[in-house]
Amino acid sequence: MGVITLTTDLGYRDFYQAALKGSIISLLPDVRLFDISHEIPSFNIQNAAFILQNAYHYFPKSTVHLIGIDTVFQEGGSYLAMKYDGHYFVGANNGIFSIILGDDKAEELVEIEVMQDLRFLHFPLADILVKAACHIADGGNINDLGSKIEEPLKKRPLLPIIENNHIIKGHVSYIDSFGNVISNISKDLFNQVQKGRNFTLFFKRNETIEKMSWHYNEVSEGEKLCLFGISNYLEIAINKGHASNLLGLHQDETIMIKFLDN
Amino acid sequence: MGVITLTTDLGYRDFYQAALKGSIISLLPDVRLFDISHEIPSFNIQNAAFILQNAYHYFPKSTVHLIGIDTVFQEGGSYLAMKYDGHYFVGANNGIFSIILGDDKAEELVEIEVMQDLRFLHFPLADILVKAACHIADGGNINDLGSKIEEPLKKRPLLPIIENNHIIKGHVSYIDSFGNVISNISKDLFNQVQKGRNFTLFFKRNETIEKMSWHYNEVSEGEKLCLFGISNYLEIAINKGHASNLLGLHQDETIMIKFLDN
Amino acid sequence: MGVITLTTDLGYRDFYQAALKGSIISLLPDVRLFDISHEIPSFNIQNAAFILQNAYHYFPKSTVHLIGIDTVFQEGGSYLAMKYDGHYFVGANNGIFSIILGDDKAEELVEIEVMQDLRFLHFPLADILVKAACHIADGGNINDLGSKIEEPLKKRPLLPIIENNHIIKGHVSYIDSFGNVISNISKDLFNQVQKGRNFTLFFKRNETIEKMSWHYNEVSEGEKLCLFGISNYLEIAINKGHASNLLGLHQDETIMIKFLDN
Repeated sequence: MGVITLTTDLGYRDFYQAALKGSIISLLPDVRLFDISHEIPSFNIQNAAFILQNAYHYFPKSTVHLIGIDTVFQEGGSYLAMKYDGHYFVGANNGIFSIILGDDKAEELVEIEVMQDLRFLHFPLADILVKAACHIADGGNINDLGSKIEEPLKKRPLLPIIENNHIIKGHVSYIDSFGNVISNISKDLFNQVQKGRNFTLFFKRNETIEKMSWHYNEVSEGEKLCLFGISNYLEIAINKGHASNLLGLHQDETIMIKFLDN
Repeated sequence: MGVITLTTDLGYRDFYQAALKGSIISLLPDVRLFDISHEIPSFNIQNAAFILQNAYHYFPKSTVHLIGIDTVFQEGGSYLAMKYDGHYFVGANNGIFSIILGDDKAEELVEIEVMQDLRFLHFPLADILVKAACHIADGGNINDLGSKIEEPLKKRPLLPIIENNHIIKGHVSYIDSFGNVISNISKDLFNQVQKGRNFTLFFKRNETIEKMSWHYNEVSEGEKLCLFGISNYLEIAINKGHASNLLGLHQDETIMIKFLDN
Repeated sequence: MGVITLTTDLGYRDFYQAALKGSIISLLPDVRLFDISHEIPSFNIQNAAFILQNAYHYFPKSTVHLIGIDTVFQEGGSYLAMKYDGHYFVGANNGIFSIILGDDKAEELVEIEVMQDLRFLHFPLADILVKAACHIADGGNINDLGSKIEEPLKKRPLLPIIENNHIIKGHVSYIDSFGNVISNISKDLFNQVQKGRNFTLFFKRNETIEKMSWHYNEVSEGEKLCLFGISNYLEIAINKGHASNLLGLHQDETIMIKFLDN
């Protein structure tokens, strides 16, 4: 039986996430439902994309990931179903699909055909996206949902800048609930520019880190470190401490890596 | 296999909701459990009724909705099981059943017979209500649980007042996590008094809205609007904004609709 | 099919709990997963032990309780699987097993053999503990996981002090989301010292309670009381009120019971 995950900004306090789940099990009583998060900041598709990119691949192939962010009817808007990396994604065509794809291409990309008059639907997340997600989770073909399109709406996240093959300038893209500070500098990008050289990571005014750690516990408690953690993005952390608070590092702040020629 | 939903003020931080779920699956290993909310403000049966009224009908008929609010033993208190609108509701007879019913009548209403000495039960939610819910979810007859009664304890929410067929005075009954301000004026009541006339919605000192929207996106970002949303109650919102904060509209504040004769 | 519960400090906001669940159902698609809590304060094994001790026994025997606190690789660290009271527990050997056991002995205690090079694992919770939990939940033998050991790492919570058989000095060990103040004085200890005598419970400067209640509702609303609640530890509460705020009673504060000779 199919698996559907939910990534929304609906929160846990209201009845919306329950209405969503009720809609799903009314169509597909035996589906397995998992919350990825209902605590995405309202309308924040960058944040939702980050969470989903890091979580989806832990689920079995063919899982359907329902994205409930910014799904309200919009003049000229549309809804998509996508196959990518063996997983399915269903949501509004608001830019999040392009962020999830990055430079990759979708295996399948379909604009969902909407039969109802959208202007009179109060809850398109339940009325359109749930039906599409259940169709796929029930073994239905993604192409039954509408017609293929070439590209989702483009919205690219701010990418790191590489200067002279010596410097990577990135920024803080996410702060997790432990206070770990996650940047937009991926391990792949870092390795590609580093080419074995030593480096200094600069942030705030005077702070630097010159060694890559494998584990939070590699430094003493309370000491700062950097590592590629579960997210595969460069992360600044403090062993057993709240790095964001203690280092004063907030969302969108610049961080810089300088590679040293020997 | 049966479905049980949970609506409680137990929160997610403590062990109580886990104890509740463990009790249920110990009795009924294959039941499907869904949280409607564990974040009802402590003892707030009005809030719990609002959430449950808006969520229950999304679930399949015959779902059992377990209400874990204000269930602690009380001298002279009792526990109820109700069938209404094809769904089952189980909880303490503390007024919440009458709020859910409104002007309707229950299809079945049973006072649960308690075998244990209630004074010595620390967790009647698990010891009494879970057993009743599992009995029904397992296909048992609601009438096996005790004897029929006519009426639950009455506790009516503050209803809107209609003046002269020209004015509806209501109040803010709920603020959701997006900041949308939901009133106690239902779509049915509005339509019944409106009879096609134009209207002005008044709130705070000087704020007015004169047009009913279908969607949040019908006005520009940051603009106020009113609509009947997912809840079917008149809602004041700001497109992509937190209406409660931005308009200073809080729980229980008065709002007024004036209908204009042509 | 097996049941696995989760007790972690991963929170609901990030992708970590979803990654954990995805890892589990990728190995064991039909397992039943229940969150005990993902809101343990970061690295707080005392708090996790309290929550788990109070919740686990509500679940069916043979449930596997996965403990995701402080599981990051540590030089010289290890991971354990334990059978105790008919339930299974899997986690890092960081002291939490000894707190759960108290004075009891484990039925089985196994150090999990790790095949991978731990230094290069970013997410041992998923890479090691999930595999162990799924092995047991799938009906596998706990002894397949590694070699028996005698004792887990010892970390004992601060225990109450008994003076002269007349006084118990304890402290506040947990404050729940209702504001109920739960001490480290168990019902067994209380009964054993009390021997039927009257008592006075002292806390803060001048506050006393001289009667044990069975229920929150035994006193008027807003009045203070003490009782042995769901947790089986002495609890100070206010009927329908937030005792911690109203009485100014915080984590770790001392409380004292004096027994009166007749």
